[in-house]
Amino acid sequence: MTETEAKKPQESLQDRLAQVIDLLDRHRLVENLTHRQEGPHQELVENLVHRQNISELQRKLDELHPADIAHILEALPLDDRLTVWKLVKAEQDGDILLEVSDAVRETLLADMDDEEIFAAAREMDADELADLAQELPRDVVHELIEGLDVQYRERLRSALSYDEEQVGALMDFEMVTIREDVSLEVVLRYLRRLKELPGHTDKLFVVDYDGVLKGILPIKRLLVSDPDKQVAEVMVTDPVIFHPDEEANEAAQAFERYDLVSAPVVDANGKLIGRLTIDEMVDLIREETETEVLNMAGLKEEEDIFASVWKSLRNRWSWLAINLITAFLASRVIGLFDDSIEKLVALAALMPIVAGIGGNSGNQTITMIVRAMALDQVVTANTSRLIRKELGVALINGLVWGGVIGGVAFWLYDNPALGLVMTLAMTLNLLLAALMGVLIPMTLMRLGRDPAMGASVMITAVTDSGGFFIFLGMATLFLL
Amino acid sequence: MTETEAKKPQESLQDRLAQVIDLLDRHRLVENLTHRQEGPHQELVENLVHRQNISELQRKLDELHPADIAHILEALPLDDRLTVWKLVKAEQDGDILLEVSDAVRETLLADMDDEEIFAAAREMDADELADLAQELPRDVVHELIEGLDVQYRERLRSALSYDEEQVGALMDFEMVTIREDVSLEVVLRYLRRLKELPGHTDKLFVVDYDGVLKGILPIKRLLVSDPDKQVAEVMVTDPVIFHPDEEANEAAQAFERYDLVSAPVVDANGKLIGRLTIDEMVDLIREETETEVLNMAGLKEEEDIFASVWKSLRNRWSWLAINLITAFLASRVIGLFDDSIEKLVALAALMPIVAGIGGNSGNQTITMIVRAMALDQVVTANTSRLIRKELGVALINGLVWGGVIGGVAFWLYDNPALGLVMTLAMTLNLLLAALMGVLIPMTLMRLGRDPAMGASVMITAVTDSGGFFIFLGMATLFLL
Repeated sequence: MTETEAKKPQESLQDRLAQVIDLLDRHRLVENLTHRQEGPHQELVENLVHRQNISELQRKLDELHPADIAHILEALPLDDRLTVWKLVKAEQDGDILLEVSDAVRETLLADMDDEEIFAAAREMDADELADLAQELPRDVVHELIEGLDVQYRERLRSALSYDEEQVGALMDFEMVTIREDVSLEVVLRYLRRLKELPGHTDKLFVVDYDGVLKGILPIKRLLVSDPDKQVAEVMVTDPVIFHPDEEANEAAQAFERYDLVSAPVVDANGKLIGRLTIDEMVDLIREETETEVLNMAGLKEEEDIFASVWKSLRNRWSWLAINLITAFLASRVIGLFDDSIEKLVALAALMPIVAGIGGNSGNQTITMIVRAMALDQVVTANTSRLIRKELGVALINGLVWGGVIGGVAFWLYDNPALGLVMTLAMTLNLLLAALMGVLIPMTLMRLGRDPAMGASVMITAVTDSGGFFIFLGMATLFLL
Repeated sequence: MTETEAKKPQESLQDRLAQVIDLLDRHRLVENLTHRQEGPHQELVENLVHRQNISELQRKLDELHPADIAHILEALPLDDRLTVWKLVKAEQDGDILLEVSDAVRETLLADMDDEEIFAAAREMDADELADLAQELPRDVVHELIEGLDVQYRERLRSALSYDEEQVGALMDFEMVTIREDVSLEVVLRYLRRLKELPGHTDKLFVVDYDGVLKGILPIKRLLVSDPDKQVAEVMVTDPVIFHPDEEANEAAQAFERYDLVSAPVVDANGKLIGRLTIDEMVDLIREETETEVLNMAGLKEEEDIFASVWKSLRNRWSWLAINLITAFLASRVIGLFDDSIEKLVALAALMPIVAGIGGNSGNQTITMIVRAMALDQVVTANTSRLIRKELGVALINGLVWGGVIGGVAFWLYDNPALGLVMTLAMTLNLLLAALMGVLIPMTLMRLGRDPAMGASVMITAVTDSGGFFIFLGMATLFLL
């Protein structure tokens, strides 16, 4: 897909989404009527209205940029989504499939026959096709590869050989390369012979006869420099480069830090094999932070908001099951102190406060640490300092808020010792929350796991069981 | 700051951070020794080693891109951060100040005297200065404005007149404008007369004599078109444009959807007044998702991970206090059922399970909804469908997992009725969690608040109090 200068949305995306939903509702209303009243004359009228609605919807969709249609598809329930999908012009299919989320793409592909998929896929670049290849029917992929020229097939194979999270899987192959021993005038004439330049071309790649990258020529420099100068005089010889096996999110961070628009990817021998562009990196940054949010809440992956109930269950059940086990363990901790609770029933009412505040405070800590880790700000050398700081915050919070709630407990149950135990238990549980809030994500990272993975469920498990044990244990020791 | 072609990080950012921390540790070690052993000869030796460390650190820093130094500053505790900050070359001060987070910038500015701040700020563009103006000492800003030329002052005033979240506050003024009635050859010659082009110049802006935007000339087209053609023949007449009072995050989404690198900002009369660039938008996307994560966990704002304990307390106390109140309310709900718990102490052990699973499930729902809202996928028209779907998921989860835990309760306490109440209570609480998981963020949005704001604390409050009430209430009705 080449960069197109899209039309300015005169209306906001929200407005357009609302309009499409409105048209769909009218469409559905008419369909319902048709089903109910079966008279032949009636049917004719309904059919006319029906067709009018559909054609209005079609007109609306034809005006929209593929990315906007993708957005609308995301926001529609399955049946409406497929109605709209059928109305979309076939030549936009490919672009839209590339724009939607994985979850929505699955529903769209399920609705297409092999021929339609083949037609959409044939329009794609090698790197784009590689992104989708796993989700396409095997036959279609096979047929596609058969029909490809050698270069394209090689590119596709290259793109497929890298892990989804590596630079190699995200690079494209639309590079404009030049030689260093020509004048800028020659470069300008060469460019003019090309029909168009690839999207996000902010630099040309200077390579030697073996394809080894010698430098880059920023378009900005090409435009302001004397055309008689040689490329070698003007080019940048130490550009930011990437290797195909580097982690994609590190590349994204580099794009962000150095304000890049495109950058060359070279192999171990320095040979230019592809390029990265900012649009892919922006998508990656968005995806990455989203995954983090979802993982922390214990959702396995991005969920299509109108996924079937069954799919949602599958996405959510694993962390719910883990939570069930941890909740059961916490319950058994309470069970240990049955006698104490029978003797002093106030304990039952107060114990969730200790656990709850601990959970909340632990979630604050773990969120902050996970954030900092995602930005590579946490290294082994500063861990102990981080823990000390978090413990300091927890200690003060424990004494202050624990003091408040201890006072309230004293006043409610007229029992000063109970108040004191409450304050102490809260302080200890907050210290536990702080410690585990740092250690859980750090340990996950050491184990090579995503530090955000279910962070919230895990910290809550610790602060629940821990909180109940600390509070009920101290109460049993000191109050009974 | 213009776009610079940064050097490729040969070592990863993590490595470099570790190296700097190592040098700082050595530096600190020597300082401690100097303090302890006071002999004059000893001091001399220490001083030499000290100086050597410092100069090695300085060399290291001189090699780094301002954005990398900013990253290292973020990851250092306050004292080390200031040691490094003092070693940074003065001409990089401005760029680094623009790169660091608000929290860290505050600590750096606090360490500079007015003269240093003035020197750093003088190097900035109007839009950059506007970003910082509020955080700079009043005297410095005053002095700066005094020394500005009229155009710069006007731009600064313009940038300052918009809210931080509006397009107007993010636009810059580095536009290359051309006329439509000249040939591309003339444009090329004009560009050559400029010393350099602004960063992210992927298009030139075509304006008439009143400064009204007539179209844009993508550099890509300029390069491949016949130089004898007129600008008017080649330019794009319906580009994506923005208005200064539009919301910045909508602009960021448009950049993402349409793969833009830069875009014009025009006033109500169509006059070109500035431009947006992808680098600002990427920063915005990053910030936005971060704010969402932090808000959900009940942190007020991005927190410098090495913020002082006092600052951290201020950032976190408000949601902790709210959580304290909600936890207290939940505790009072339990207090209502003191008699029931005294009669059947198993209730005390089982009730946190009902509350906990509800909280976890509610957090999954609310996270998904907040995500979808941030991407503008939720409109009033699809709310009821969303609620129905979430209720469906909750019902099945409740019956399945509630059934499991009800069975366990039956087995543990040898009380079939207790098991049944447990199952029923869990199902009801999950339904409550699903309903509130959709309604809480939607209501917050209706009220014009950030839907992520403390979402986690609020949903937990509902599922705790609700869970206790449902479970203990039903137990009292059916079991006692």
